Amino acid sequence: MTVPLEGKPHYILTATCDSRMGTVARVSGFLASHTCYITDMQQFDDVITGRFFTRISFYGNPGSTPELEALREQFEAVAKLEVMEWAIVEADKKPRVMIMVSKFDHCLVDLLYRNRTGELKMEISCVVSNHPDLRSLVEAQGIPYVHIPVTAETKAVQEDKLMALVEETQSELVVLARYMQVLSDDLCRRLRGQAINIHHSFLPGFKGAKPYHQAHARGVKLTGATAHYVTADLDEGPIIEQVVQRVDHTYTPEKLAAAGRDSECRALATAVRLHVERRVFLNDSKTVIFG
Amino acid sequence: MTVPLEGKPHYILTATCDSRMGTVARVSGFLASHTCYITDMQQFDDVITGRFFTRISFYGNPGSTPELEALREQFEAVAKLEVMEWAIVEADKKPRVMIMVSKFDHCLVDLLYRNRTGELKMEISCVVSNHPDLRSLVEAQGIPYVHIPVTAETKAVQEDKLMALVEETQSELVVLARYMQVLSDDLCRRLRGQAINIHHSFLPGFKGAKPYHQAHARGVKLTGATAHYVTADLDEGPIIEQVVQRVDHTYTPEKLAAAGRDSECRALATAVRLHVERRVFLNDSKTVIFG
Amino acid sequence: MTVPLEGKPHYILTATCDSRMGTVARVSGFLASHTCYITDMQQFDDVITGRFFTRISFYGNPGSTPELEALREQFEAVAKLEVMEWAIVEADKKPRVMIMVSKFDHCLVDLLYRNRTGELKMEISCVVSNHPDLRSLVEAQGIPYVHIPVTAETKAVQEDKLMALVEETQSELVVLARYMQVLSDDLCRRLRGQAINIHHSFLPGFKGAKPYHQAHARGVKLTGATAHYVTADLDEGPIIEQVVQRVDHTYTPEKLAAAGRDSECRALATAVRLHVERRVFLNDSKTVIFG
Amino acid sequence: MTVPLEGKPHYILTATCDSRMGTVARVSGFLASHTCYITDMQQFDDVITGRFFTRISFYGNPGSTPELEALREQFEAVAKLEVMEWAIVEADKKPRVMIMVSKFDHCLVDLLYRNRTGELKMEISCVVSNHPDLRSLVEAQGIPYVHIPVTAETKAVQEDKLMALVEETQSELVVLARYMQVLSDDLCRRLRGQAINIHHSFLPGFKGAKPYHQAHARGVKLTGATAHYVTADLDEGPIIEQVVQRVDHTYTPEKLAAAGRDSECRALATAVRLHVERRVFLNDSKTVIFG
Repeated sequence: MTVPLEGKPHYILTATCDSRMGTVARVSGFLASHTCYITDMQQFDDVITGRFFTRISFYGNPGSTPELEALREQFEAVAKLEVMEWAIVEADKKPRVMIMVSKFDHCLVDLLYRNRTGELKMEISCVVSNHPDLRSLVEAQGIPYVHIPVTAETKAVQEDKLMALVEETQSELVVLARYMQVLSDDLCRRLRGQAINIHHSFLPGFKGAKPYHQAHARGVKLTGATAHYVTADLDEGPIIEQVVQRVDHTYTPEKLAAAGRDSECRALATAVRLHVERRVFLNDSKTVIFG
Repeated sequence: MTVPLEGKPHYILTATCDSRMGTVARVSGFLASHTCYITDMQQFDDVITGRFFTRISFYGNPGSTPELEALREQFEAVAKLEVMEWAIVEADKKPRVMIMVSKFDHCLVDLLYRNRTGELKMEISCVVSNHPDLRSLVEAQGIPYVHIPVTAETKAVQEDKLMALVEETQSELVVLARYMQVLSDDLCRRLRGQAINIHHSFLPGFKGAKPYHQAHARGVKLTGATAHYVTADLDEGPIIEQVVQRVDHTYTPEKLAAAGRDSECRALATAVRLHVERRVFLNDSKTVIFG
Repeated sequence: MTVPLEGKPHYILTATCDSRMGTVARVSGFLASHTCYITDMQQFDDVITGRFFTRISFYGNPGSTPELEALREQFEAVAKLEVMEWAIVEADKKPRVMIMVSKFDHCLVDLLYRNRTGELKMEISCVVSNHPDLRSLVEAQGIPYVHIPVTAETKAVQEDKLMALVEETQSELVVLARYMQVLSDDLCRRLRGQAINIHHSFLPGFKGAKPYHQAHARGVKLTGATAHYVTADLDEGPIIEQVVQRVDHTYTPEKLAAAGRDSECRALATAVRLHVERRVFLNDSKTVIFG
Repeated sequence: MTVPLEGKPHYILTATCDSRMGTVARVSGFLASHTCYITDMQQFDDVITGRFFTRISFYGNPGSTPELEALREQFEAVAKLEVMEWAIVEADKKPRVMIMVSKFDHCLVDLLYRNRTGELKMEISCVVSNHPDLRSLVEAQGIPYVHIPVTAETKAVQEDKLMALVEETQSELVVLARYMQVLSDDLCRRLRGQAINIHHSFLPGFKGAKPYHQAHARGVKLTGATAHYVTADLDEGPIIEQVVQRVDHTYTPEKLAAAGRDSECRALATAVRLHVERRVFLNDSKTVIFG
């Protein structure tokens, strides 16, 4: 038997709260009492931090305008009881995403392509860069390109401009697609859980600059890339995705870097996909991911 | 906050039924109403077959002897309503498992070792073989070894003996760890969903005999192994796990076979672990696996 | 100690002949007697087919114009003795490559990008398609786009046109980047060892059409793609590269196909790179690859 | 055509020297002039360190007793000219290997098993442990077990005993299969390039103790193990093999450790196999590996 879902509005509920008895029953009971149909539900109870996480994909009922607002209002009562952080969103509404780059374009090209094919379901609000180089590439796809040059002197001012742009463009997520500027602690805090960076190493392997030279010097047999949320502590943000590939003694630093581009693209694209599909939760310095 | 679980009985509930509204709420509501605490819940709704699957790990309450029987009795009402196939078992009770082998011993050695380390949580009821060769290896570990030779003439009789042994030893699962005899259709039916085989190929790649010679002849660049439930249709049973590894032109059939032993051990061990942890569900000719 | 290679011409010698005593010594002796410096030498002796394969990267001496022609002439004596098929080419000369597509563009976009970054060292002579759809994408990069529509009636004529185009554009390699037309036996023969196809399955797994639907129906846990040389026997050409990725019961055929795009891009790009770097040798129905 | 190798003695020549013109020709010319037949030859020229490495598998001629000694004597002239470090060994002669353990037995069990199947071609001279626990496991396989307890006070004396045992048993290789004692700098130096350690982390990721707890705290999405040569600088020895596997937020440190056992077994077994097959060369702080 298949429950007919055709034409019904599709929602995602995400919630996190302290672990306690009956939360699953109360949340699923709420949805059942509103004749909502759950198609996918995942939950995780972290016995170490004592936190509970859940992501529920469900279908509501057509016609009851505006259903989403009503659902949110009524869920508030459950959420209050459980002291939850939560959200209910339309599953098909694409989050607005700002991409930041410098001069390397492989991650940008990859993200634009995956967005075009529909594999990534996001609306790119704009591409921001501290260099003018990639303007034509971006504008050719009908996406606004904003050049915000940064020097040591102008950094504070330019970061304010950046943050204003995030708000003005209603961007929910900022993707640092090989953006080669360190963000200030203050900006990192303001973008907590909202900005994803790609680190061109298999963290915690090689932090800092030139990881491919470090990997070569160490003679590793596997190398990779790490996508993580941005935090003030550089290279230490909560990890979302890691990708690895086999290398050998014939790899020069240049060849390691060339090979690394693939890992970077794949790790960043996966992390962005997981985030825009509301599958990633912050759990202290780590992430919970419902794949 | 952490809910104190110390000393509480730990159960696994598995259930499958037709997809319908409210099942998750009814099941989780049942557990909440019995002050049972859910630590892990996974569910899958197959929109194509219209079947619903769930696996719930939960903690009951100490002291209420015999709680398990009471829970089962009371859950029957919910299950009837939903026309469910279901089970509630003690999470720490190890299923009894019969292993069958011929002469190759790599999968057997691997399973025995992983069982000894506690990675596989099962009680090996006995090892059955159509050859006497591996007796000392098995008995040295204090496990009964039963030699059931098979010829074309004795096959039917010996299979009856085998089935009797499964029942007598209360074995819930039969693992064919490179058992080189084809089971009769009848035996396959009687062991449906209860017998796991390791196929030494990356199915559906190379069916039948000598898959490593086939792989060599075809010049594949990756090879692997497939663990699946036994069905009358040889090599077509529902797949539980597949493992793959890279090979190249220097691999002779012998070297492919040697390399393949690793894949076979890993695929079979994973499949057995998933099964004894009650993570695998039959879904027509396929499986649903809650990893 | 490092031998100074700066400014010296860099060559690749590839050769195959029947296995016999002393071939390595004769070839390397020839190079040493011409004060050529070997930086990389790989060889394989297939004990089953009795064929010998070698690929040597070496540096010649500057100034002796035209050294390449002289080397070739003088090597002919060695080659005759050994009844070799062989070639000596300039390592930095990019082979001319024709790409063929239909409507799917993911492999095309990936190849164009990797060529632009220099990861693939080839000169794209033109993109040929039986559809007009991808013209603007290709021409935007300054690459000629040739539309050759094909119907059952016009197939023979259009294939002649195609073959004429291969010769006219001096294309050494034809890459079928999801070209959805079956080539005639005759064309396959004419392009033997010169045309690479991407099959959207992990061959020999699912031949023919709709492999993602087949994979779904079979409930596989790993899926992948295969890049191979084109032969008259569809889906049976010598395999160059295979890529695999893990999937699970939640993958619909659509999601399998989406996931498969990544495997296809990676398998095809790797195969093309290996070929243009002269690392692939035909060995009957298989390949020898010096990675 | 296949060169008949049946009955001919099979040798491995390994050599390393400074990079210079003509080395390949001189070495292969030497073999050809002695009518030796090369079946596999690999070489690597490190343009950064200016070192040349080669491994040649070849067949000599039967009957000419003692051919090996004669070959070695005559090759000495070539080797002197090139200032080579070199060796010629019989391919089928199994190196004698000493295994050292403490209490964890998974790597030991795995090595013993792979040795028994012939996948690892070595002769285990003895197993040494600072604990008595694994005696019966080892002796049951007919292998001597030597208990050498170590305290801070007795360390120097016991290491002398150990080194004496290495010599007395003519062990060419020492495998630290989760031996939980730090070797003295002096012993590390004496065993340079002759002792392999398994580090239970994906180095350089998590050095020092409790890497699985570190991995858990950092929330990594991939974990692994590293097999490397022992050096005075702990965790910094030349890497031979690395193995990695995917993990997620549900992995506790215990589960990470359990999962890690597989990686450790596979990385160590591969490293030992590569070493005993004479495929690994030291290249400063790195290795060159002919796979």
